[in-house]
Amino acid sequence: MQFKMWGEDQFIEYLKKQFPSKDSCLGIGDDCAVIPGSRGDAWLVTTDAVVEGVHFLKNQISAKNLGYKALAVSVSDILAMGGIPKYTFLSIAIPKDTDSGWVREFIQGLKEACDEWNIILLGGDTVGSKRDIFLNLTVIGTAVDTKIKYRHGAKEDDLICVTGYLGDSGGGLKAILEGLQRTEDIEYLIRAHVHPALHLKSGNWLASNDGVHAMMDISDGLECDLKRLIKSSQKGAIIDTSQIPISNELKRVSLENKWDPLQISLTGGEDYCLLFTVTPENFETLQEGFEKTFGEKLSVIGKITDKTERLVYLDKGREIQLNYASFDHF
Amino acid sequence: MQFKMWGEDQFIEYLKKQFPSKDSCLGIGDDCAVIPGSRGDAWLVTTDAVVEGVHFLKNQISAKNLGYKALAVSVSDILAMGGIPKYTFLSIAIPKDTDSGWVREFIQGLKEACDEWNIILLGGDTVGSKRDIFLNLTVIGTAVDTKIKYRHGAKEDDLICVTGYLGDSGGGLKAILEGLQRTEDIEYLIRAHVHPALHLKSGNWLASNDGVHAMMDISDGLECDLKRLIKSSQKGAIIDTSQIPISNELKRVSLENKWDPLQISLTGGEDYCLLFTVTPENFETLQEGFEKTFGEKLSVIGKITDKTERLVYLDKGREIQLNYASFDHF
Repeated sequence: MQFKMWGEDQFIEYLKKQFPSKDSCLGIGDDCAVIPGSRGDAWLVTTDAVVEGVHFLKNQISAKNLGYKALAVSVSDILAMGGIPKYTFLSIAIPKDTDSGWVREFIQGLKEACDEWNIILLGGDTVGSKRDIFLNLTVIGTAVDTKIKYRHGAKEDDLICVTGYLGDSGGGLKAILEGLQRTEDIEYLIRAHVHPALHLKSGNWLASNDGVHAMMDISDGLECDLKRLIKSSQKGAIIDTSQIPISNELKRVSLENKWDPLQISLTGGEDYCLLFTVTPENFETLQEGFEKTFGEKLSVIGKITDKTERLVYLDKGREIQLNYASFDHF
Repeated sequence: MQFKMWGEDQFIEYLKKQFPSKDSCLGIGDDCAVIPGSRGDAWLVTTDAVVEGVHFLKNQISAKNLGYKALAVSVSDILAMGGIPKYTFLSIAIPKDTDSGWVREFIQGLKEACDEWNIILLGGDTVGSKRDIFLNLTVIGTAVDTKIKYRHGAKEDDLICVTGYLGDSGGGLKAILEGLQRTEDIEYLIRAHVHPALHLKSGNWLASNDGVHAMMDISDGLECDLKRLIKSSQKGAIIDTSQIPISNELKRVSLENKWDPLQISLTGGEDYCLLFTVTPENFETLQEGFEKTFGEKLSVIGKITDKTERLVYLDKGREIQLNYASFDHF
């Protein structure tokens, strides 16, 4: 059997069985692993691989943006559990004939991200590669033990919320792949794809509210990641598709190019927005505080149900079937 | 300029300048990064990439041995600073058409190593790869702050010592590449290459002796790694080539195949022996204790001098020039 028949989620299930969590650490299956510290604090650890030809093409993202984005991917996982990123480790495998200017630019992009988010690069590994460039970033962060938010915490009747806009990154990638002319709207989408914006303290801020029950980042698209959240929480979800936050830029570009903005926002992936559930009573206070602190609104897109693993989409109050293929690394 | 012109060590120097150590952490330039803990303990973190076509060929190492060895490489770094490995994270990029049986075998090898060294796999990332397999293992260990041994600690007149035999792994690789017939001696060498033996507590044990000043593991060959140690310590070294510990197996195979065992033992790499320096007064007690605990002898191969970065080889008391090309990942 070829490995692709397994798929990422099944492979992770296999790994979970082979390597069960021990020593009160949380292991495989959430955004980060959690290692308890000694004084009510905990270490969060996450690691992400980025592969040429799969996650990026050298002629479609600058080395500098790649360095920045490679770190953003892992930092987002730390934020999604309510942590603050502290340290990073870079492994890079590069073909011998790679231009050293490209490598310098890549490091400068990584440095920009480290400086912006106050992260220290503490080590790594540099090796040759026969053909493709491989990157791996490990990020270690800290969190208060009792404030960590997991995927498995969602409760029935919780509101399902997201930060930011969904689909901008997917739209940016589509624009690159289709070679669209660089209008202001297109530049905005491409920027979202190659240089994702993260609010360093948003996850930590949300996690400090006891009404927030479950949280994760949206890296593979809302459709795929919400399914993971409800599976982990043994709950279901109803999503009101009219409430999915879609930027005006993506709406306009979709109209011009006959794209389906809903499909892009549900399956595009790489938005690095936060997906979380919150008890309805706490939402209003949370919304006010979030807007005051981060200058952005939270979007309520649905609610948690007791129908385990059942994800329902509504359009004007009626259930609809969406058959979007979700993003899979394989 | 092509990246290979930089070489690994110069690239690491560049990174050190871009990312200086902060917050009393030790960053780039030793076997592991050191993150101080809260009660005199510290976290050691190391990460190692293993790339198909560069570090291994799929038809020359079994998936199971590869899984075992990939972890050994990083565990060795933790031992080399006096730590005990605790947790690991696996990133794996695999082409879609890889046989799932191969992947299962790989995971079983990793599990064997985790079980043997009491390490918990806490997470990772699984992604596709266009062509080659790429692995990255991050290992986190613990150590007592004051007992950590660095590369930069060597003192003038220290004895230079190593554990185990040098060159067995290099000999094993050579035997594989030359397609030699699998005699008992050859099997021994190949085993050293594909399934390296580590003494989980040897580094920790050595580090607890105050007379041990500097320590690192030998992953790129004694020649290359000793140069790093003396550079970091701003010292020099004299090596008595007759004292390099070479196994009888490597001696016999070298004789039969007209190999130069000294060259293999100095440049072969991947032996994962420990290289350390110790004050002469402490050596005898150390030797006794080590033999009692691990059933093996330490080898004294030379001494530290005040001639910064000067590495001298002696043969029967006379200086000799060795022009061996050292192992470079590029």
